[in-house]
Amino acid sequence: MSVVDFARFVDDLATQSGQAILPFFRASFATEDKAKGHAAFDPVTEADRAGEAVMRQLIKRSFPDHGILGEEFGTENPDAEYVWVLDPIDGTRGFIAGLPIWGTLIGLTRGGVPCYGLMNQPFTGERFFGDGEAAHYQGPHGHRRLRTRRKGDLADAVLHTTDPRLFGAGTTDRQAYERVETATRLARYGADCYAYAMLAAGHIDLVVEADLKPYDIVAMIPVIEGAGGVVTTWEGASAAKGGRIVAAGDKRLHEAALALLNA
Amino acid sequence: MSVVDFARFVDDLATQSGQAILPFFRASFATEDKAKGHAAFDPVTEADRAGEAVMRQLIKRSFPDHGILGEEFGTENPDAEYVWVLDPIDGTRGFIAGLPIWGTLIGLTRGGVPCYGLMNQPFTGERFFGDGEAAHYQGPHGHRRLRTRRKGDLADAVLHTTDPRLFGAGTTDRQAYERVETATRLARYGADCYAYAMLAAGHIDLVVEADLKPYDIVAMIPVIEGAGGVVTTWEGASAAKGGRIVAAGDKRLHEAALALLNA
Repeated sequence: MSVVDFARFVDDLATQSGQAILPFFRASFATEDKAKGHAAFDPVTEADRAGEAVMRQLIKRSFPDHGILGEEFGTENPDAEYVWVLDPIDGTRGFIAGLPIWGTLIGLTRGGVPCYGLMNQPFTGERFFGDGEAAHYQGPHGHRRLRTRRKGDLADAVLHTTDPRLFGAGTTDRQAYERVETATRLARYGADCYAYAMLAAGHIDLVVEADLKPYDIVAMIPVIEGAGGVVTTWEGASAAKGGRIVAAGDKRLHEAALALLNA
Repeated sequence: MSVVDFARFVDDLATQSGQAILPFFRASFATEDKAKGHAAFDPVTEADRAGEAVMRQLIKRSFPDHGILGEEFGTENPDAEYVWVLDPIDGTRGFIAGLPIWGTLIGLTRGGVPCYGLMNQPFTGERFFGDGEAAHYQGPHGHRRLRTRRKGDLADAVLHTTDPRLFGAGTTDRQAYERVETATRLARYGADCYAYAMLAAGHIDLVVEADLKPYDIVAMIPVIEGAGGVVTTWEGASAAKGGRIVAAGDKRLHEAALALLNA
């Protein structure tokens, strides 16, 4: 099966998981009364489970030999040639706060290498997808090819990280991050997967994060690379296993950031 | 003229400013080449000016006696009975990064007291508006009344601030903010005016910020109060002049936050 054939299937996964998740978004007010005496009810957990369950069901029906690695329901058949890597809601804190900057991440690896990825934002109707060779955007105001911005100089760069507290207080990782933040033109917090999407779209130049799980990043790798960007660990190795990640729209910027992170 | 009549006019301001601003959103890639040799061209500044210019023109035509205070073009007739308080793009850094969590803020004061406010997000099609007595949401998935969440306990609360760096490093304001952050269940960064909108909608419980200008907050005051929330300075005074602001969905939570901020 080719990546083109998978693309249509991934669109189905996005549509159906979006339908499962969206009723829970901004539903905290409506569910407040129900929650009384039912402490276990948590809209984001329910949405996460509902979104992942529908994707797993579709995958198993269409591709029973494929593996699945998901945030909510663990790993099945991890040694398969094709493994799906799923995060139904990346950006949980944004979801909880009612902000439309979370996304459903659907990645596919072949022999451990990310070969297709899609991020879906069902509230705004935006999708970002790529296969490592090219990347595309489909949204309420149209479709376009994604291309990163070619800015080689840290002093010009717009940097994103989800939350500087995630590096830990006073750690060497935090110091490394801060060397990069200080060198850039503008740093902004709080975007999760949207930061990688905006990097692919050419609005952000650099994303630096730590402690990512594979399902936080695998889907975005073919999008970033398809748009012309570079994404690796802080050591310059494959980002597919997560960990400490640096993504850049421009190869020169990526090198400059790696140098500062490892200084 | 009653607030009801103003509501329709404010909708017009939102529609027309949105049409002026939206072409600049995520346009940085398309304008990159044009910018070479024209260092003064900056999409967010252009969008800010275009949005405010169209609003000023409409206000002057319809209400020549009213005053205007705007982020881009300063103050006119500030001693008028009615003064419009305008921020065409609140959340400039989100706008620059391509994230749909900035907003156009349109506030109206009468005798210095905020009496009507609207936040418009033209990309997602969301509007949040209120008159201090009631507040409403209109978006792509429907219309509803806005009501804050009644959580009185800091330990349960979801807190937002735009960026902790805005309090300054090591300042007493930063320490005061951190006392509140430590006491809450969850703190998230990076939402600007959307944090106040989500507080009015019952998804966020508390917003703490410093150094706001009147045009950053005036429009949100009748929305927050109309939804049942409380918004004041850290001293408990009117928020209409900006400064250090604390907003809460619940009066008890507001008191608890004030106590910690002034501890």
